[in-house]
Amino acid sequence: MMINHVHIRVKPESVDAFKAASKENARNSVLEPGIAAFDVFQQTDDPTRFLLIEIYREPEAQARHRETAHYAAWRDAVADMMAEPRSSVKYAAI
Amino acid sequence: MMINHVHIRVKPESVDAFKAASKENARNSVLEPGIAAFDVFQQTDDPTRFLLIEIYREPEAQARHRETAHYAAWRDAVADMMAEPRSSVKYAAI
Repeated sequence: MMINHVHIRVKPESVDAFKAASKENARNSVLEPGIAAFDVFQQTDDPTRFLLIEIYREPEAQARHRETAHYAAWRDAVADMMAEPRSSVKYAAI
Repeated sequence: MMINHVHIRVKPESVDAFKAASKENARNSVLEPGIAAFDVFQQTDDPTRFLLIEIYREPEAQARHRETAHYAAWRDAVADMMAEPRSSVKYAAI
């Protein structure tokens, strides 16, 4: 298992569009055999901040995810919604 | 559902003791009826950084968690292991 957290801050006017695009991407991503979970969270005290929690069954599954059509569609759709570059942190369950 | 993320950085010499105390706390916490999940993660590129992901069935469940003996034992055990004050962020699933 490899857990990847992606922290994203979007422009205020893009909150709703980002939620819609990210729900669609998550819906398709959980169908990938290498993905155990793919969830989208919105920060309670700042609705422009989101967290994607991606749980991969093995590290290579992340590379395969990035080759899918739904990932490309999400990446292109949200590119102009970002208020700052997104950042990611990897974790191991203990 | 209320998701609480607790970010913790421990002293390098406290990593193993923190993992042990936090696993014990998580093992007891998931038995609380108001807690849907309670997981401990260690950051891959910095083993002194941890993330607790606590999923409460309702907001009041967090207050009840803080009244348990296992929470008090964990809080007291790890107090001197912290390298800096811990921080938390609340999320809603979308």
